[in-house]
Amino acid sequence: MKCTVCRGPAVIDVRRHNSAFCPDHFVKHCQDQVRKAIHEHHMIEPADRVLVAVSGGKDSLALWDLLAGLDVTADGLYLGLGIGDYSDESVQHARAYARAHDRALHEVDLGADLGFTIPGAAEATHRSPCGACGLSKRHLFNRFAVDRGYDVVATGHNLDDEAAVLLGNVLRWDVGYLGRQHPVLPASEGFARKVKPLVRLGEREMAAYCVMRGIDYQVEECPMAVGNRHLGYKEALNAIEDRSPGTKAAFVYGFLERGHHRFAEDVASERSDLAPCTSCGAPTPDGVCAFCKLRDRIERAPSDQGTS
Amino acid sequence: MKCTVCRGPAVIDVRRHNSAFCPDHFVKHCQDQVRKAIHEHHMIEPADRVLVAVSGGKDSLALWDLLAGLDVTADGLYLGLGIGDYSDESVQHARAYARAHDRALHEVDLGADLGFTIPGAAEATHRSPCGACGLSKRHLFNRFAVDRGYDVVATGHNLDDEAAVLLGNVLRWDVGYLGRQHPVLPASEGFARKVKPLVRLGEREMAAYCVMRGIDYQVEECPMAVGNRHLGYKEALNAIEDRSPGTKAAFVYGFLERGHHRFAEDVASERSDLAPCTSCGAPTPDGVCAFCKLRDRIERAPSDQGTS
Repeated sequence: MKCTVCRGPAVIDVRRHNSAFCPDHFVKHCQDQVRKAIHEHHMIEPADRVLVAVSGGKDSLALWDLLAGLDVTADGLYLGLGIGDYSDESVQHARAYARAHDRALHEVDLGADLGFTIPGAAEATHRSPCGACGLSKRHLFNRFAVDRGYDVVATGHNLDDEAAVLLGNVLRWDVGYLGRQHPVLPASEGFARKVKPLVRLGEREMAAYCVMRGIDYQVEECPMAVGNRHLGYKEALNAIEDRSPGTKAAFVYGFLERGHHRFAEDVASERSDLAPCTSCGAPTPDGVCAFCKLRDRIERAPSDQGTS
Repeated sequence: MKCTVCRGPAVIDVRRHNSAFCPDHFVKHCQDQVRKAIHEHHMIEPADRVLVAVSGGKDSLALWDLLAGLDVTADGLYLGLGIGDYSDESVQHARAYARAHDRALHEVDLGADLGFTIPGAAEATHRSPCGACGLSKRHLFNRFAVDRGYDVVATGHNLDDEAAVLLGNVLRWDVGYLGRQHPVLPASEGFARKVKPLVRLGEREMAAYCVMRGIDYQVEECPMAVGNRHLGYKEALNAIEDRSPGTKAAFVYGFLERGHHRFAEDVASERSDLAPCTSCGAPTPDGVCAFCKLRDRIERAPSDQGTS
């Protein structure tokens, strides 16, 4: 296997591009794809202050590293979810990367700063931990960005993530989620811009990028996500991709080109109907925002559950 | 396992309905679902002359049988595709059903009547046999219906088929196909109405229906379809359905309720732009219709291929 660019020995093939790369040209391939995504969707302007949502996994550390390679200086924010050893190890990877590359890493800890953990929230609400986790992340990353004057929150969602979320949204024809699914959510009152610069790169490429760049990341998947529906969608798409390389990319990019606008109108008016949460001030359509409702439910649950 | 209706011994469960049925109530379940589909989508009116596309497989024979159970008298049309033993056996099942139930079965044979077979077409065009097969079926079933004064062509596409086709269409965001995917295509100049009364019933239910009704069908799948993309989509959906029963039904019905109209406008004008094929008279946007182009390509191919 030879590098498609320099004909030197290749270490990885990217079937959907019908290409193979040596380490140097693979890193360049990743940078090119991120540059293209940023440019195509106007994700980041030169003067923007960027906050990267850092989990300690391959995607967020690769994203942080790739942004630096494109001369985008970004600070990191790590959110401690209180998921036992998994969280304990994840934060070490985030800190190690920040230290080695001299980056600013902020930390917010659900347990210490907000009085609950994701396992505790799942138990108290009798609902999926992934729901409480996603809600908490969206709320707290945005709040931190708005409070500290960051223009942009960049997350490490890759092509596999976006394809799996899109598959779930079309399987349910959830027109609201379809209207909101986009690599860029523009800023508005109370919201920083949200961007997904890895939308053109797959999971396997992100793992390979970290290996080639010597980035030590949390390899273990979140133990609370094992067996969830999202991973089932990923497996189904992997089986299809394996027979027809490029299916996921065509699915996600095709949606952005020919599908998304058909659903966007339904949700365009949503943000104008928001008012500050009566509890925390975050924009919400419902008086009290979903995050404050979650915290309230946790507080009302039997006292042994909230922080277990 | 007890029948959800009568509490007698059940012989089949239908997980997406959270139900199980004895043989009698299973047959009634199938009839109810077909009645609902016909009613919901205004598929068949009492005075309509109906032609069933009969392949000899479980779906088309079950459809023919179910329509009779709902007092819809339909004639059958079997299309001989020239696929070796598979075709030889299929036609026997179609004839046996017609004979046993005293139904009129018309037959058209690609080889004898049109001078080519599906394997020959695939070889001559260097394209997928499934493409030539679908094209030939659509063209010839419609032509037969129009020529003989049938109002409606009913096909045995079931919920699994529709879900797999829909998945393929959204994976490519093929907005033309999405606009045309519907359980009813209305009649227009040169086109009989096309209806899919089995859209609310799965593949497994159709096989069980045939067993319970003592209908002997061609069990073997078409040997030319083995490994095709459509079957890959079915497998992917089966894996998801297995974890979340009801996914396929929600996917297809959700599309019809909340998705289809967003794509229908793009294709609404298509049929008004058609003119008779200069060769066969079928409505086409292109001067010569796709079926006549296919026949032309086959005729121009080296002479040992057309009917092999």
